[in-house]
Amino acid sequence: MQDQKLQNNFFKAVKEDLENLNDKFLNEISPASRSLKTILENIFQQSGKRLRPTLSFLFAKLIQTNNIDQKKLALVAETAELIHTASLVHDDIIDNSLVRRGQPTTNSQWDTAITVISGDFLFSRAAVNLSLIGINEITGIFARVLENLCDGEIWQAERKYNTDIDYEYYLNKTFKKTASLFEAACKASAIVAQGSEEQIHTAANFGRNFGMAFQIIDDILDFTQNETELGKPSMADVKEGTITLPLLIALEKLEKSDPELCTHTRSLIKSDITQEELQEIKKTLEETNAIQEAFNYSNKFINDAKESLEAFSNTEIKNCLLELLEYSLVRKF
Amino acid sequence: MQDQKLQNNFFKAVKEDLENLNDKFLNEISPASRSLKTILENIFQQSGKRLRPTLSFLFAKLIQTNNIDQKKLALVAETAELIHTASLVHDDIIDNSLVRRGQPTTNSQWDTAITVISGDFLFSRAAVNLSLIGINEITGIFARVLENLCDGEIWQAERKYNTDIDYEYYLNKTFKKTASLFEAACKASAIVAQGSEEQIHTAANFGRNFGMAFQIIDDILDFTQNETELGKPSMADVKEGTITLPLLIALEKLEKSDPELCTHTRSLIKSDITQEELQEIKKTLEETNAIQEAFNYSNKFINDAKESLEAFSNTEIKNCLLELLEYSLVRKF
Repeated sequence: MQDQKLQNNFFKAVKEDLENLNDKFLNEISPASRSLKTILENIFQQSGKRLRPTLSFLFAKLIQTNNIDQKKLALVAETAELIHTASLVHDDIIDNSLVRRGQPTTNSQWDTAITVISGDFLFSRAAVNLSLIGINEITGIFARVLENLCDGEIWQAERKYNTDIDYEYYLNKTFKKTASLFEAACKASAIVAQGSEEQIHTAANFGRNFGMAFQIIDDILDFTQNETELGKPSMADVKEGTITLPLLIALEKLEKSDPELCTHTRSLIKSDITQEELQEIKKTLEETNAIQEAFNYSNKFINDAKESLEAFSNTEIKNCLLELLEYSLVRKF
Repeated sequence: MQDQKLQNNFFKAVKEDLENLNDKFLNEISPASRSLKTILENIFQQSGKRLRPTLSFLFAKLIQTNNIDQKKLALVAETAELIHTASLVHDDIIDNSLVRRGQPTTNSQWDTAITVISGDFLFSRAAVNLSLIGINEITGIFARVLENLCDGEIWQAERKYNTDIDYEYYLNKTFKKTASLFEAACKASAIVAQGSEEQIHTAANFGRNFGMAFQIIDDILDFTQNETELGKPSMADVKEGTITLPLLIALEKLEKSDPELCTHTRSLIKSDITQEELQEIKKTLEETNAIQEAFNYSNKFINDAKESLEAFSNTEIKNCLLELLEYSLVRKF
């Protein structure tokens, strides 16, 4: 997967930007404390695909290829990744998850105290970045993202093992927990690139739709991939009592076609769910065609994201974004 | 103590501002989640003296009594209190302290997850406020405070049960953990009040010196007051392995006068310290006159704070600030 990524044009287009970003994460963001420095190096080294910064860099280039304030753009991209990383660190405490991306999480290696501080430190660096960017609208955009992340996280915590959720809740939560930051990464970069009001609006739309599809697909993969592919235990969401789209679709279909099985399936969602019960749920998803329907659902967002690019004329960068979309969202099916 | 406060002029001068602040905390800062709302109400109701907002309101009035953008000033005051409260909530996880201000802490009543989110939510509201204030310099000031709070907290965590610390470390940590936010509360309000460069500089000095003295006195009271007076167990710092100024002074004096007792006293600082050993330390502090010397040390900062007010001509508000200083810093001796 790593090699395949390196051959993609979207990656080549932002390779240098991402290298500078990694360099800054590993060398410049250097807290006064040695143990915090070690933890952060660890977090940054094991962290993921830099998808949000990639979107920031590409979207600015889509609007214009010259005269961009590269320093501010880099700060926007970095801020998106800092907020993403900070929220992962704190989510690990919240979800009590001990493995993420195939690596032990911060929370399992160090104690809770230092994990809380590490996340706070990353948030504080994001705040420093916002003051360095110095564009008030962008401060507001990322501040609202922070609020959304908290809301989303607590909504999910409040509804653990509650199977009585609906599409509206799922979509709102998905926006708050994931799509809101994707939206911000694109919108803020369009502002730095001095896009027109319409271009900034389109950037926000693209990011939001991309983020919605990204999270839905992530939720599907939690059911369809195994532990090695996921880099974390599969069906983790169900185990933690979080109902995502595939299960929501299955329950809704069963409610009409087989209310008894529906009630039975709901009753399986509990903290001491067994391996057999997990397999039972997986079978129900297959029988109700819920995975395929969830995939179709994500396709609506993917198509909206694609469509919003039509307004732009820079074919080269547009193709990079479509390629990134293909790579991140369609690749697994 | 509460009644005494209400009779003070400094309190009358900001009474309405503080009432509006409390009102906003309890009614307007309303997260979408019901359980988060309950927690925040609890946090705000049990929280303290609103010292940082009081400083913000008074300092703006000291510079000018008319033509202040009251909305922005209220946001500055609120931001200082939000950051203070958020850091208390996260510190409670970090210090594992179960009682603060005579009330159970957030961390003891709810689980760690929800405590982490509550703190994050308060930080996110502070970030939203900064974007609403819309003055980039102020965003930068509070962003640096966030960084300082993390640094200070982790410095302290790294040096738990380490008796090999010096004045430089203690003063740096005290600035980062406490004085930095006091400095920001005064400096940012001076900026909103459109003070001259010199006035803004003086505001920062006043806040920093006030904050340093405030923390030193807090550290002294931890030794001299009992559980009822403190609203939390006394000698909590020593129990948690945190060396503060009184003990630092005592160890330094003993190092010269009685190296054997110095080594013995150091050996008492451990996680399983007994009640008898705590009393032994208290006796050593008395014999070395360390409490009085720590108090003298705090006086330097108090005097610097007082002196910095001399540049201002508004006698009424100046007297309020001196009264607040007396009330908060000198009252206990």
